[in-house]
Order: sequence, then C-alpha cells, then structure tokens
Amino acid sequence: MRLSTATVSLSGDLVGKLHACARAGFDGVELFEPDLVVAEESPEEIRALAERLGLRLELYQPLRDIEGVDPGTLADNLRRAEAKFALMRRLGIGTVLVCSNVATATTGDPIVARDQLRELARLAGKYDVRIAYEALAWGRHIDDYRQAWRLVQAVDEENLGVCLDSFHILSRGHDPAAIQDIPADRIFFVQLADAPALTMDVLSWSRHHRLFPGEGSFDLPQFLAHVLRAGYTGPLSLEVFNDVFRQTDTDRTAQHALRSLIDLQERTARLLDPPTAGTAPVAPEAFTFAEIRAENTEPAENLLQQLGFRYRGQHRSRPVRLWAAGQARIILNEQDARGQTATLAALGLDLPDVGAARARAGLLRAPLVFRRVHEGEDVLHGVRAPDGSEVFLCPPSGSEDPPWIGEFTHGSPPTASTITAIDHVNLVQPWEDIAEATLFHRSLLGLEVDSSAQVAGPSGLVTSQVMTDPGHAVRLVLNVAPFGARPGSLAQHIALRTDDIISYVGQNAIDTLPVPGNYYEDLAARFGLRPGFVDELRSLGLMYDRSGGGEFLHFYTPTVGSVFFEVVQRIGGYDGYGAPNAPVRLAAQNRSLLEGRHG
Amino acid sequence: MRLSTATVSLSGDLVGKLHACARAGFDGVELFEPDLVVAEESPEEIRALAERLGLRLELYQPLRDIEGVDPGTLADNLRRAEAKFALMRRLGIGTVLVCSNVATATTGDPIVARDQLRELARLAGKYDVRIAYEALAWGRHIDDYRQAWRLVQAVDEENLGVCLDSFHILSRGHDPAAIQDIPADRIFFVQLADAPALTMDVLSWSRHHRLFPGEGSFDLPQFLAHVLRAGYTGPLSLEVFNDVFRQTDTDRTAQHALRSLIDLQERTARLLDPPTAGTAPVAPEAFTFAEIRAENTEPAENLLQQLGFRYRGQHRSRPVRLWAAGQARIILNEQDARGQTATLAALGLDLPDVGAARARAGLLRAPLVFRRVHEGEDVLHGVRAPDGSEVFLCPPSGSEDPPWIGEFTHGSPPTASTITAIDHVNLVQPWEDIAEATLFHRSLLGLEVDSSAQVAGPSGLVTSQVMTDPGHAVRLVLNVAPFGARPGSLAQHIALRTDDIISYVGQNAIDTLPVPGNYYEDLAARFGLRPGFVDELRSLGLMYDRSGGGEFLHFYTPTVGSVFFEVVQRIGGYDGYGAPNAPVRLAAQNRSLLEGRHG
Repeated sequence: MRLSTATVSLSGDLVGKLHACARAGFDGVELFEPDLVVAEESPEEIRALAERLGLRLELYQPLRDIEGVDPGTLADNLRRAEAKFALMRRLGIGTVLVCSNVATATTGDPIVARDQLRELARLAGKYDVRIAYEALAWGRHIDDYRQAWRLVQAVDEENLGVCLDSFHILSRGHDPAAIQDIPADRIFFVQLADAPALTMDVLSWSRHHRLFPGEGSFDLPQFLAHVLRAGYTGPLSLEVFNDVFRQTDTDRTAQHALRSLIDLQERTARLLDPPTAGTAPVAPEAFTFAEIRAENTEPAENLLQQLGFRYRGQHRSRPVRLWAAGQARIILNEQDARGQTATLAALGLDLPDVGAARARAGLLRAPLVFRRVHEGEDVLHGVRAPDGSEVFLCPPSGSEDPPWIGEFTHGSPPTASTITAIDHVNLVQPWEDIAEATLFHRSLLGLEVDSSAQVAGPSGLVTSQVMTDPGHAVRLVLNVAPFGARPGSLAQHIALRTDDIISYVGQNAIDTLPVPGNYYEDLAARFGLRPGFVDELRSLGLMYDRSGGGEFLHFYTPTVGSVFFEVVQRIGGYDGYGAPNAPVRLAAQNRSLLEGRHG
Repeated sequence: MRLSTATVSLSGDLVGKLHACARAGFDGVELFEPDLVVAEESPEEIRALAERLGLRLELYQPLRDIEGVDPGTLADNLRRAEAKFALMRRLGIGTVLVCSNVATATTGDPIVARDQLRELARLAGKYDVRIAYEALAWGRHIDDYRQAWRLVQAVDEENLGVCLDSFHILSRGHDPAAIQDIPADRIFFVQLADAPALTMDVLSWSRHHRLFPGEGSFDLPQFLAHVLRAGYTGPLSLEVFNDVFRQTDTDRTAQHALRSLIDLQERTARLLDPPTAGTAPVAPEAFTFAEIRAENTEPAENLLQQLGFRYRGQHRSRPVRLWAAGQARIILNEQDARGQTATLAALGLDLPDVGAARARAGLLRAPLVFRRVHEGEDVLHGVRAPDGSEVFLCPPSGSEDPPWIGEFTHGSPPTASTITAIDHVNLVQPWEDIAEATLFHRSLLGLEVDSSAQVAGPSGLVTSQVMTDPGHAVRLVLNVAPFGARPGSLAQHIALRTDDIISYVGQNAIDTLPVPGNYYEDLAARFGLRPGFVDELRSLGLMYDRSGGGEFLHFYTPTVGSVFFEVVQRIGGYDGYGAPNAPVRLAAQNRSLLEGRHG
C-alpha cells in the first residue's frame, strides 16, 4: 500500500518536508493547507517538485465548517471551497478532506447537512475533485464515523466518500468494527495516529499529543485490520499533531514516521486471516554485554574491580578491554573517544535468530553500525538506537562464554562470581526522543512498555519508562531528563544481579553512594522493618523496597563520567526497580556533583 | 500574617530551599517529607538551621491513607504515624497534614472514619501534635472540605482541625463560602495554589500544573476573603506542584512565590469590608518609549529612517540616541552592549502616579534598575522584568514631548508624522518564565491576560499571550518560544500605529518582509475580498485580518539583531494582533535567516 504522511506531522518548511519525506521513502503526502499558505513557492512549483521527488500529493486538507449552516453562510462556504478546488487542480491533487462542522453549524438537521454536502460534492465534481468527509471527535453534530458514513450514503454522489481517522474514532472509544460495513470504494482516505492514554479534553489531546503508530496506547493493528478487511487499498497516511515533532529534525522525524507505518503494517498482517506476516520482532533472551566508552576507561575499571569483576583481557586488534563476572560482561572501549569521559555506548543482546533480527532491522531501516573485522574475528551486527547508543545482535551463548571472548588476550581466567548477570540497563533519553526510542525498541526487539514512573530529582521530574521482553530477560529503563536540563546532568547505569547482596557487600570493599540516615528512619516507619534489619542495611549502605510479595535490596556506586553501576538482589518475584528510592539516589548524586565542583 | 511555602514548590535540596525562602523573606515553610528523606542533614540540623534563618517549620506533610481501613491496616497506619509524630518532635513541628484516604480506604462509613481519626488524634496528642485534615479533590470517600469539616466536628478532639487547600476546593468547583462557617480555631492550616483552566483529570492537573496565586484562573482573592472572614490568622502557605518550578532557580522562584502572596494579600484586602487595601497596581496610560540596545545601533536607525522617523538627537551624557514619529519614541542605546546585536532592552510607560507605582514596586520587591543621573537630568525609575527587560515608570506627558527629550541635542525638530504611536510591543519569554512574567506585569502594572493563542512556526508552536491595561492603551504580547528552541531564534518587535497604512507605505521606501503569493490567494478565498483590493495589498506587501466588525492592515520590516518593527492600522474597533498571519511571518523570517546563513 502507498505510505503517506500529512505535512503537519513534520517541522520545517514545505519544500524541506517534501524532500525529507522522499528521502525517508514515503510514496506520498497529504498537503496541510497552512504549509502551502506560508510557502513562497507557487502551487505549480510544489506540484513539479513533488513529481520530481516521486511523491504523490494524495490529499489537500482541510476544508472546515461547511455543512449544516444557513443559506448565506453556505454561499460563502461554497465560494471559499471553489477557490480551493481550483487551487487543487493547479496542484494536481484529486481528493480534499472535509471535516464535520465544529463551529458554525446552526442545525443538526440531517436533511440540511445532506443537501449542503450534495451541493458541495457537485461543485467539486466540476473540478474532478473527490471529497473525503471525516467526523471530527468534537464535531458539533457529526462526531462519529458511522454518522458520517450514513450521511455520505444519503448524499449518494460518487465523488463523496469518507475519511477514517484512527484518532477521531479511537479517542472516543467508538468501535471500529463497523468500518468493515463500508464499501471499499467509499473509503476515500485513511489517516493513522496513535496517542497516549490521557484524560483530558479531546481537542487538546488531538492537537498536541498525537503519536506515530506504536508509540501510544491505541490498538492500531486492530483498527487497520478492519480497514483492510473492508477492502481498502488507498494510501495509509499519518496525521500526527504533536508539539515535539513540530520541533525535531525533519529528516529524522520522517524516517521515524515511516518506520511506524512499516511496523504497523507488519503487526496488522499477523492479525489477518490468513496472516500475511513478514518478519516479526525477535525478542532478546539476555544481555550479552554492555559497553562503556571513554578516552580513559581506568576509572570505570576501578569500579569493576571493586565490584569483584575479573579482567578478561585486551582485544587483539582494538583498544578494547573486557571485564566479566558471571554472565555480566562489560566492554571498555577507548576507540574514537578523545576527550570523552565514560558513557554507556553499546549493548549486546542474545537473540535466538540473529538473521531474522537483521532482516527486521533492514525492513525498519534502522541505521546500521559499522565495525571493522579482522580475519578470524566474529562479525558483530549492530544498529544505532535514537539516543545514539549501539545495539548489537548476538547469537545466544547460554551459560557458556560467547566465542568472541577468544579475541581478548592477556587477561585472567573466569572464576566463580557472586554477580550473576546484568539485571537491567538505564539509558537516558533526550526529552524529544522518547517516542522514537519507544517505537525503535518495540518494533525491532519486541520490547513492550511495562511501567512508567515519575521521579522527583533536585533539578526536576525524571520520567522513567521500563521496556522489557515478554520474559523480562532484558529490561531497559529509559529515563527522560527534565525539559531544558543540561545534557549529561542525568547519568546512565548498568544494574548487576546477585543472589546474596548482604554477604557480597560484606566481602568486597566497595565505594557505595552514601545513603542518608533520614532514609533509614523513613524506611523503618513505612515498612515496619525489624530494627536489627534496618541497622544492617544502614551499616552496609543498602537500600530496600517491597512490593507485592517481593523484596528488593540494592546499592549504587559513585559515578564515573556519566556512568555508574547498581547491584540488585530480587527476592520473591520482586519485579520493579526500586523507584521509591530513586529520589534518594538523585539527591545523593547531586550532592556528589556539587562537592566535586566545590572540592 | 505569616507567609510560608511548601518546600515542594521549589527546586534543589532542602538546605538550599530553606536558605532561598529566608532570603526571599518568607516567615516559614511546610516541610514536604520527601525533601527530608533524601537530605543528608539530620532532623536536628534542619531544625537548628531553620531557627538560625528565622524560618518557622509550620507543617509536616503529608500523612496519607490513614482512615476508613480495616483494623490490621489501621494498626500499621498508627505505627507509621507514631514514628512521624516522634520525628516531628525532633524537628520542632507542631502540625501535621493528613490527607483524606485515596488508596486503601475499604469503607466510606463515616463512623469508621470518625473512630479511626479519633484514635489518630489521641495518639498525636501524646506528642503535642495537631492534625490538619484535608479533603483531597480525588479522595476515595472524602473529597469535599465540607465533608472533612463535618468529620472533624464528629471526632471532636481539640488537636484535630481542617486544612483548606484552594486547589482541592476550587478545582472541583466547590463553593468556598462555607469556609466562613468553620470556627477560626478549627482551621489549622491554609494552603494556596492557583491553576490554569485545564480540562483534564484533577490528579494530573494538581500534581503538574499548579501555579502561584495570580498566575492562573482561580479566584483566590475571593477564596482568601472567606478564610479571613472566618477569622483565620495562621500562616498563608503556598503548595505549588509544578513541573517547571521544580527546575527553575531556587532563589528566583522563591522571590517570585513571595511576590504572589504579597499581591494576593493586597487584592484580598480590597474585597474586605471595610477594605484594608495597601497600594494598588498603577495601570499605565501609554508607551513613553521603547529602547533598543546594541553595540552598533545604526542598522536599527536605518529601519527607523525608512519608516519616516526623525532623528531627535544624541543624549548629552550617554551614547544614547532618540528617534521619534508622533508619540512613538525609540531610544537607541550603545552603552554596555559590546558584541551585542540589537535587542529590545527597555520600555518606558506613562503612569498617572509614578510615586504610587514606585511604592508598589517596592512592596513587591521588584528588582530596581540603576541609571546614573547628571545634574539637571530627570531621574528615571525602572524595574527589571523577569525576561531581563527594563520597565521605566514615567510621568505622563500627554501629547507633549516629555521633558527629558531636552537632554537630547543635535537632532532635528519634530514634524507631522503618519506614525502616531507605539501600538504594542512583543517580548519573547523563555518557556520557563511565562508564569513569573504574567504575575510581574499583573501585580505591578495591573495588566491582565486578554487572550492567548498558539501559532505554528517552522520550528514549533509559539504561545502568544496578550496582556493589557483595562483601556488597552498599553498592549504587551508575551511570546513563548518552543521548548528547547535556540535562544534568540524568536525575534521581538515594536508595532507602530498609523491611521492610513496604504498611503503611508506608498509614500515611504520601506523594505518590508516578503509575503508569499499563496497567502494572498488564501486571503481572497477566506474573506471573499474584492480582487482589486487583494492586488493592492499584494503590491504594497500588506497583510490583512478581519474579526468581528473590525479590520487590520499591517506589515513587518526585516529583522536587525533580534528586533524588527511592524506597522499596523486598526479599523472599526479591531482589537487583535493579526494572529492568523503570524505563521506567514514566522515562515518568512525563517527563510531570511536561512538565506542569511547561506548568503
């Protein structure tokens, strides 16, 4: 099917938007009228440019507040519409979006609306224009696609059909099943938008908070399945009013938008009977490694040594070192890192089918990572996530060392370790990228949003979104820094798992992030813990959480560069991340920062 | 009355918050428990610090989800509460906030709630703690202050009273008049917060969008009048959960918070019988001047000459020049501007009573501006607005030249001018400062928010808030740049008024900002204008708007530094600012910027 986006979904000027859509791989666009009005290019120039770029101008939009009005207003509306039909001919656009009247409707009489839409359709017919009539969620009298379809049937003009917009239908909780009752040749256009679950007025929700499919909470595969079962074969077009995407880089947003449509088509295909699925996301089974990059990785290696990691050696062809403890492997990379302090640069994930995951990455046009390979070395296949971190797709090695460890030499052999694995990884996302990151991990790896929390820090609220595979083997925590926060003001971290944190901390001399006494007093009051247990936690610098039947014990290390470590023990099926303790950590890290600045 | 704020209203750590509150001039604070839990200072240190700073710790908050529970949960709740009562003794805090149960209430039986609150109150009594019970707007069973008061009456313990929070009462639309029925000695605490009119779930509204009094749409003077009529004499305390104030500078937010309480007290005083008003805002009557600052002001002077302004001379003791046309006076200031391109640095306003305005500025602790004065020169009294611009309080000069014009020499005498006055001024506000700016102009000058619009630009949505005096003589348009926009990406401007823009443009050779042809085609379609008139607008580069019975003609100049000019003609009582044309301007300015970068 042809893939399209409304120009309003992107930032920039019209010419820039068209170029970005073509580069991203769209087949066409909906031309949002205000983008044309402010452009210096003539309609003829826009038409010729779109033609050269291979983009179809699928739709002109919107015409508003036409039907259900008094005769004087109708005459004025028809004059206004006719000017736009003439303009559409110059643009070479054959379909116009007409939204149900929200403002000037003076009557809900369906006969009046029918007669006036018929007059509009006949006028449009003179210009070979088709009208796609859409029920806005906040239309004055027509606010349901089923009403719009009945009205279109009543008018009975062949150049009048419906436009189906997932937002207007799903935001109101209308059942999309009746889409299948509309003949395919009367569905003139389909607009797709997702949205987060918000309880607010639907107009503001629609104008500011729409998302690309797969980034919100609407069931768009189900919606699109109804559309496809109806037999619709026209363009699938994104119409996403979003305050953030109006600001983000045009090319990047266009690529991200296209990825959402590709993924939606794949998800929908698997719902059809018979399913016509292409590739599916390949869910990871474990963290293979995490990689820290810095000009000098010794401060990070110092922490790893304290944590009981073993130095497993230096890579034979790169300035890269490996430390390991159990299945937790940390790669320290000094390549191309001049002037950089430690950052969390890459993750390796065990995937049951690397070939399928690579095919999926190709389909989703995920940017590939290049790494030079010497004769005899394993090829690492990686993609770049929206936050710039790299994700490597690795074959599973189970409880064995992966074969590439043989490329590291001059290290120590492995020993038994109290640290068993990487439990989770926290990655900081710029505030403008969280939707794109959510889609990326969801569409490529099948990770789903498991929970979301807001954590108060001394410099603002941090939003923390957990994404995991169905088995919770790979847990990513995406932290969004407050608007306007200094880049790097929030650190990233790798959380390591142990089964006995109390004896582990007792046996290793580890610098832990200091925890204030007030925390332990509150802990005792909140959970009614035995005093002896609280004293033990306090003396070891451990933090505690309890939820459902499970318990969580953990501590943090100091930060090097913008990376720190956490060690966690999960007891009794605890499935969270100690979120109630995050403000304590943020405050302590802020104190360390200030001391560093003053010291 | 004692002025207080909850520590949660400010960013930073607890010690920093206490220092900022003391510096701003607060008498006390409510201690928000999470601020203490994450602090490294002991309760004794916090108590001693507050004592040294002269701050009363007015309230410990909050205790949640106590009443309406099963016996096992109650025992646990009382244990938890008792730990906090003991902590409060160490802190020297005598009152605790208890919120109505939102989560764990298993019964709405008022007898159960009564008995359990009585048990809590008696336990608190052993620690000399008073309980201020508050109905949360989203309480499970108790969500109205009148219910809370009935419950407090039923318990009938002298250390149990109510806490009245303006947000929880006004957000639900509850009539605050019944506050007067509560005996003053049973109102243990009063929390004040404003909020914008939003249609969304009340919990999110409360937790993220509260504002300081005078910044939102609640009628807080009326609310506080009821509280005062009840005879309440305790602290007035701000509890403002706001995502932005959690990020902004602690000292600055504390000053701004205190200003909101001072202003609220003054506004409330004027409602009482007899009114006990102190000073009132002094509304300006006209713009006296606008000042542009730059290292080299010649590019701006070039524009002024094109616009028909006369050079009125150079200041005798400063590198400052004056250009004028009618009552529009533009000062060009090269002092202390090394390396700066043109910015809109100051406004002079005609005020009927400069003395009263200065007293008001002093009361509100507005930062004063210093300007050196030579013998025989007029003293200019100025204050600094939150955006850094200066506002000078000038005696009115009517249609005469103000006397300070005599300080400018070697210029030309005035002549008749088609430009009659400054119509309005657009100032760009950083996104984090708009609430503070609104309060500043409202409390100092009595300007009120007249309208607000969102304008789509190529780099994001710009919010445009108009503030005017009751007579609309002084119109300020506060433009908020999109989150994360580069500073200076949005320009400021001075709009000049004429009564005959068509002959004015015809007679002066003015570089106007280019307007695209598509705009004129859309204009003709939208308004049904005569073709001849549209052609005239197009040939002159004029833009057009119509609203109500009035019409608006205007054009923009190119931008120098970050300042441009607009010339406007208002016809038939048009009261807007041509907002539908703003996207056309933003797009054209963006093209000029890109051309400048490429050229």
